[in-house]
Amino acid sequence: MSLPAILPFAQEQIRKSLFDGAIAVDATAGNGHDTLFLAKAVGASGHVYSFDIQQEALERTHLRLHSEGVGARVTLYRKGHQFMREVLPEQVYGRVAAMMFNLGYLPRGDRQVTTRAESTITALEQGLPLLAPYGVCTLVLYTGHPGGEKEADAVLAFTKQLDPKQYDAAWYQMLNRNHAPSVVAIKKVR
Amino acid sequence: MSLPAILPFAQEQIRKSLFDGAIAVDATAGNGHDTLFLAKAVGASGHVYSFDIQQEALERTHLRLHSEGVGARVTLYRKGHQFMREVLPEQVYGRVAAMMFNLGYLPRGDRQVTTRAESTITALEQGLPLLAPYGVCTLVLYTGHPGGEKEADAVLAFTKQLDPKQYDAAWYQMLNRNHAPSVVAIKKVR
Repeated sequence: MSLPAILPFAQEQIRKSLFDGAIAVDATAGNGHDTLFLAKAVGASGHVYSFDIQQEALERTHLRLHSEGVGARVTLYRKGHQFMREVLPEQVYGRVAAMMFNLGYLPRGDRQVTTRAESTITALEQGLPLLAPYGVCTLVLYTGHPGGEKEADAVLAFTKQLDPKQYDAAWYQMLNRNHAPSVVAIKKVR
Repeated sequence: MSLPAILPFAQEQIRKSLFDGAIAVDATAGNGHDTLFLAKAVGASGHVYSFDIQQEALERTHLRLHSEGVGARVTLYRKGHQFMREVLPEQVYGRVAAMMFNLGYLPRGDRQVTTRAESTITALEQGLPLLAPYGVCTLVLYTGHPGGEKEADAVLAFTKQLDPKQYDAAWYQMLNRNHAPSVVAIKKVR
């Protein structure tokens, strides 16, 4: 029994907010890890909207979902998450139970292509109002690559100023590892 | 289902490390909240050693334990936690499964009497080697009182330099509340 690791901690917060038929957003499809997790957690009557700017990421995600038989539950967008508001169907506004960001670069991909402070904050500004009451958004932050520290600082600064009447926000991190990832969790209070 | 609050998060990490017959230390008895929690979790064959410098705290703790019928499982010391190594019986060295610190002042007590950076760090230096393999130590940090910020900074600086081969260390905090408490959890790896 260890202290919670970063990715399991994020998934645990998300899992508590999901249910059969829920709507979820994966803001960073990447290798499809979180999209698959969300697709399983929302059940056959739920739906996941998943974003990535890299064709490679969407192909890996597509393969993974279909090999697990949950491809029909997911809509993949080749589009940056900063455009989620214009892309998502209006019917999901205020109904998103869970939203996950896994920032940084695509593992086993081009490390030059990373999420960036400015577009991540835009995505958060657009994404949080889409959450349902008691909906949860998690962001896994990495600081080991160029721009990572700046992006993490921007996410933390943005999160600190959220209205506590509208959102709870927490930060979980390992203390004695260099550049270990950390996770921010934001929960809509009502 | 909310994000974990600070005190439940601390208790959850501690609970995972406890078992019937375990040995535990409450470094800050206070009103007896954590001592009672530990006394229940170690069972009738376990034991808790609990420290406080204030008579008032020890009396409240004593009353609470006896009203719950677990007083016999607890040894109370009127002594600062920075002396735990000289006070605890040698047989418990390396056998402590859980150690809790709840820093700051005694609720409903004299707010001038607080734990302090220097003695807290001494207690940690003495306490961590007493942990059993996979033992856990938690510290709840408060920054809203004079000296609180300095003490929290000292605990964080101390924890960051712990050898990752010997300890895992994590920090959990709320982000959008002023002076919300936070919790550091340290787990002996082996």
